[in-house]
Amino acid sequence: MPDKAPWITYRPQLKVLDCTVRDGGLMNNHRFSDDFVRACYQTCIEAGMDYMEIGYKNSPKQFPREQFGDWKFSDEDDIRRIVGDHDPVKTGLKLAVMADAGKSDWTQQIIPKADSVLSMIRVACYVQQIPEAVDMLHHAHEMGYETSVNIMAISIAQEVEIDQALEVLAQTPAQVVVIVDSFGALYREQIDNLYRKYAKAIEGTGKEIGIHAHNNLQLAFANTIEAIILGCNRADCTMDGLGRGAGNCPTELLLGFLRNPKFKLRPVINLLQEYVHPLHKDVDWGPNVAYNLTGKYNRHPRAAMQWRDGKQKDDFLSFYDQIISDV
Amino acid sequence: MPDKAPWITYRPQLKVLDCTVRDGGLMNNHRFSDDFVRACYQTCIEAGMDYMEIGYKNSPKQFPREQFGDWKFSDEDDIRRIVGDHDPVKTGLKLAVMADAGKSDWTQQIIPKADSVLSMIRVACYVQQIPEAVDMLHHAHEMGYETSVNIMAISIAQEVEIDQALEVLAQTPAQVVVIVDSFGALYREQIDNLYRKYAKAIEGTGKEIGIHAHNNLQLAFANTIEAIILGCNRADCTMDGLGRGAGNCPTELLLGFLRNPKFKLRPVINLLQEYVHPLHKDVDWGPNVAYNLTGKYNRHPRAAMQWRDGKQKDDFLSFYDQIISDV
Repeated sequence: MPDKAPWITYRPQLKVLDCTVRDGGLMNNHRFSDDFVRACYQTCIEAGMDYMEIGYKNSPKQFPREQFGDWKFSDEDDIRRIVGDHDPVKTGLKLAVMADAGKSDWTQQIIPKADSVLSMIRVACYVQQIPEAVDMLHHAHEMGYETSVNIMAISIAQEVEIDQALEVLAQTPAQVVVIVDSFGALYREQIDNLYRKYAKAIEGTGKEIGIHAHNNLQLAFANTIEAIILGCNRADCTMDGLGRGAGNCPTELLLGFLRNPKFKLRPVINLLQEYVHPLHKDVDWGPNVAYNLTGKYNRHPRAAMQWRDGKQKDDFLSFYDQIISDV
Repeated sequence: MPDKAPWITYRPQLKVLDCTVRDGGLMNNHRFSDDFVRACYQTCIEAGMDYMEIGYKNSPKQFPREQFGDWKFSDEDDIRRIVGDHDPVKTGLKLAVMADAGKSDWTQQIIPKADSVLSMIRVACYVQQIPEAVDMLHHAHEMGYETSVNIMAISIAQEVEIDQALEVLAQTPAQVVVIVDSFGALYREQIDNLYRKYAKAIEGTGKEIGIHAHNNLQLAFANTIEAIILGCNRADCTMDGLGRGAGNCPTELLLGFLRNPKFKLRPVINLLQEYVHPLHKDVDWGPNVAYNLTGKYNRHPRAAMQWRDGKQKDDFLSFYDQIISDV
């Protein structure tokens, strides 16, 4: 390889999506104050983010409204309460929501784009749910949205399943296919392996590959960089890494790394200071030994989250002994 | 690249050095209790570590003994108080100390190996101090020790200086040349660049390349993995990342990653639980926004450490404004 410094420049087509409210909401049942969500929104605009994912479109039939905050459902009126008649052109920011296969009344919840401030629907599914994901992608596309598909928990999917899923997804209208390391279990070489697989599958379709990493092994930022180096043009991140369990790739680290001068770090630091750091009092996210272990053993972070909710939350040795006996 | 999983196996020649007491001591003037150091030592043995760096050989003339703990000087008697007549063969663990160019009375402090429980002297220097480092390496080698050389703060050295330094060091008896990212400023591609440079310089000498990473950008573990993938056979780490500023590559993550069955994770988790986590009450290490910023701007962590010692320690926005005005 030549003794050059390609990292000194940037790819204009690389787009960043902040999913603080959507992924972080998994830690507090999406009960964020309007102030918090509005501050995130303003920060995304000021920081030059390309997308902000404001929540889920999950079914109120499955998830009783009284048990969750508005961002579990992201109704148009609730979004507009925060963003008004959001203008993606003037602000430079597009709004997105995530709809889960199996958890969304998507035929009702995804309304025509003409009536919405949203630009993108991100369809999330497990590898077992590809058929519903395909239907959802077609529906969202027909409603007029940009679409993205996130196959979750990719670290426990079988290779042949991934290959087959990608073959099917390559034929959908999804503009983006995201590598999702829900368990924060993937090391660098595994990211490479998956990237090559995704790249081969979508070759010639014009689709982009995205990366959504979790921080169980303190590798969320590193794996995001790795995917970007390989050619990913969509990267997910959250403010202070706020997200499920060990959290996500921190927006402040990712923006600090990217060289595109449109990205501004100061508004993000300001948000951390005023809104996100204070949340640590009530919401317990970020890497620790319990998440290290679920990551290492390629397990759902659920066990570690339950542990952190209990009385023994700092007894990591007992957690180790438990997870080892489960393995 | 073939669709294979090379990470499933391991390189027997890859050796791990725990430098918790040496690097962590930079956060508490090396005032560790004997209990703490003994627990680290026992843990290193039980965990299958190859080396434990127990402290510095720094000059008591420059660093008054009353201001520092014993591990700033690591006199033979003090080491033996902890490890007795340590046997590297029986325990599988070799003991090391670090001697800094410009800060060590190395002609007196490095005694003949026959009279010491130490196996290795690690010489640390800035790129400006290569001549003294060379003398130190020769002395330590003649005294009978394995030797390693750590060019510190490599992220602010000029390329031509690094090349010249490596050319000189290639001719010394040092068995190991370590890539040292003191400022935690290096991203993946920069690690690659340096690794190639080091590898080329030592080609044919039989020397090994080491990696010593700091966690300012949450990349210490990732950069250590990267260097290992490229061919580094010596990796530094510390328990819970205990080390200067943002800390080091955490031993628990590194051992979790390595596939050599000789490495055992449970003793490390036990040490974290009993000895290292409780230290957070008094010692402030680990990544935060201030260290992110010194890393991003390739600055010594000193500014962030001083900030963390002051009243505004959590006012990261002011720190951002200060560092930006200094840049």
